[in-house]
Amino acid sequence: MSHPQIITLITDFGLADGYVGALKGVILRINPKVRIIDITHEIEAHNVFEAAFVLAAACRFFPRGSVHLVIVDPGVGSKRKPILMETEDYYFVGPDNGSFSLIPEFSVIKRVTEISEPKYLLPRISDTFHGRDIFAPVAAYLTRGVDPREFGSPIKKYRRLRIPRPRKKGREIKGEIIHIDRFGNLISNITEEGTRDLFGGKGCQITIGGRRLSRISRYYSEVKKGGVLAIFGSSGFLEISVNQGNASQALSLGKGDPIKLYYGMET
Amino acid sequence: MSHPQIITLITDFGLADGYVGALKGVILRINPKVRIIDITHEIEAHNVFEAAFVLAAACRFFPRGSVHLVIVDPGVGSKRKPILMETEDYYFVGPDNGSFSLIPEFSVIKRVTEISEPKYLLPRISDTFHGRDIFAPVAAYLTRGVDPREFGSPIKKYRRLRIPRPRKKGREIKGEIIHIDRFGNLISNITEEGTRDLFGGKGCQITIGGRRLSRISRYYSEVKKGGVLAIFGSSGFLEISVNQGNASQALSLGKGDPIKLYYGMET
Amino acid sequence: MSHPQIITLITDFGLADGYVGALKGVILRINPKVRIIDITHEIEAHNVFEAAFVLAAACRFFPRGSVHLVIVDPGVGSKRKPILMETEDYYFVGPDNGSFSLIPEFSVIKRVTEISEPKYLLPRISDTFHGRDIFAPVAAYLTRGVDPREFGSPIKKYRRLRIPRPRKKGREIKGEIIHIDRFGNLISNITEEGTRDLFGGKGCQITIGGRRLSRISRYYSEVKKGGVLAIFGSSGFLEISVNQGNASQALSLGKGDPIKLYYGMET
Repeated sequence: MSHPQIITLITDFGLADGYVGALKGVILRINPKVRIIDITHEIEAHNVFEAAFVLAAACRFFPRGSVHLVIVDPGVGSKRKPILMETEDYYFVGPDNGSFSLIPEFSVIKRVTEISEPKYLLPRISDTFHGRDIFAPVAAYLTRGVDPREFGSPIKKYRRLRIPRPRKKGREIKGEIIHIDRFGNLISNITEEGTRDLFGGKGCQITIGGRRLSRISRYYSEVKKGGVLAIFGSSGFLEISVNQGNASQALSLGKGDPIKLYYGMET
Repeated sequence: MSHPQIITLITDFGLADGYVGALKGVILRINPKVRIIDITHEIEAHNVFEAAFVLAAACRFFPRGSVHLVIVDPGVGSKRKPILMETEDYYFVGPDNGSFSLIPEFSVIKRVTEISEPKYLLPRISDTFHGRDIFAPVAAYLTRGVDPREFGSPIKKYRRLRIPRPRKKGREIKGEIIHIDRFGNLISNITEEGTRDLFGGKGCQITIGGRRLSRISRYYSEVKKGGVLAIFGSSGFLEISVNQGNASQALSLGKGDPIKLYYGMET
Repeated sequence: MSHPQIITLITDFGLADGYVGALKGVILRINPKVRIIDITHEIEAHNVFEAAFVLAAACRFFPRGSVHLVIVDPGVGSKRKPILMETEDYYFVGPDNGSFSLIPEFSVIKRVTEISEPKYLLPRISDTFHGRDIFAPVAAYLTRGVDPREFGSPIKKYRRLRIPRPRKKGREIKGEIIHIDRFGNLISNITEEGTRDLFGGKGCQITIGGRRLSRISRYYSEVKKGGVLAIFGSSGFLEISVNQGNASQALSLGKGDPIKLYYGMET
């Protein structure tokens, strides 16, 4: 892997304070040439699963060698470890709290290192902002070509969140809504791949919030404006949408709500 | 035109999901050296006119050769065309849904190309995220020097939104509010240029929301804090503002509300 | 100081309009190679103190020679001066309205210049958007190596906001909340340094909103989820936080509310 030159940022810092600025400053002071790319700073405060979800949706499109910095860190200052995770393509840096739970779904993890080497951290470590004092410097030194093994010792375990999985039973898949996006799309944990295996792409019925849909659409505009549809979204998950509207608001549904997919006509 | 090296982004994706990140990743994978400049990702969901308005306000200040990527795409997956528009100074890439309606107001359009050449698109095109799969790759390849004609065939027509125009009648101009900005300024469709033509810069009366203003101010602080004033804003449109306050809230006015400009003393 | 290559941005423009885009375009047109780093555009509209606070929290981490552009400018178009302030490490550009009030707290000011040289400004200066027409060009020319003295004449005075200072009296420090961050942390004006001087790091009592805390914590997770704690935050100020929660909401406290620190057991 050649020296990475891109650092992406996923945080729950919001955009109204100086936290993101401090992070960027620290990075640029160590490597003034690195490219910093904001993925998002609007992860819900302390919501580690959201960070894991957004990371999985976005990280795969970046050039090989990119460093993904993920800082949603409610346990900052406690015993949770600072880690550096490596896959064939990327480096991931952040607290070991489940933020990287979805990486093994699409990639092989080569090594996980517990960050401990003081020479790559800021001289004074605060107890409330390891993003600035630990994670940002490590990411920046990585882009300067420091060997990942220099940052600390390899560890065998890292934390994974319990990810809700759809349950398959005969002709039925029971899933749940795991993310609401900006447009109000209800994104479920049912994947296109899983479904294709089971159904061979044939007809089906979807039940959500007491409503029944008799097919999976390909375009939003297959239904009229304001109509409800099921569609496989851009990340490969089954989504419930309203054409040019907000499905979450229109159907009063949110995270954790059940969705059922049934193959054939239910009696 | 030398090879453009800047891509600006205007979308309605918001900043809380992974969509903007995916877009940037795709661009950087094709051209790791390009500069990506966020104009905004906070266009109201599906609001094509807002995108057109913000594009017109911001795009003109960028260096010649910049690529402006505008993705507010409620019709994604339907028959609306993906297009590349060229002017003397810039490239514009996005769906043909009216996003580029205001470009001819300040620039001559040299060519419009319907994007169709698969070799410049992602190998698998989703039906819900052409921003990532079509528009981002085209913008990135443009910055690598691909000739615009390579992306598809020229077309003669593109979609233009009906833009509300002020109506002039004798000493009176009737306009309407077309945009509310972050500060609550009520931005009308009456332009300085149009007004100067008519009035030669002389005195006038403005009527809005039952209120009458007897002059056009030059500075916000010409009136006391909290006072209402009319002013030609930075984009050249007549705006109604409250000094250090929020005119939209203070006057309970919004988009579509009428504004009237009258030359001389109305009897 | 070598030629600066980084311009950071702090504004109250928000992200939904074209203002930030115009600013970036102007900068890139003058220096296409400069790095533009968003610190924040979400300063509360017209809130100069917030800008000063966020600037102080973030600016110190940037590489030497960076240009910090701070544009919260309710007095735009009036007689308030456009200024360029220099310290040993940085350039600061913006309106002379108090935005730079906190700089002397951590740095020595070498020179303040009133910007007046037209050749470094946009040819036509609007009366409502000096960010675009005056401050952005000056910042961009600075990164091209123009000598600060070229922009105008040195001035001796610049505006400083009245900054609320904690009052010390015997064993007591009375401060107030000066900032609420994204997480709802209540950030006071009591600094670690000031307190260490007084108390030598020994035990203390904190009173806020009728509640009494008997110690200063080091980690959020020293208290259980939802528990209230006092902690010295990453900027060195005493903060009241709720572990994994929002202190401002939980305690119904906000800016200007008093906080009292008492050394030893109060009787």
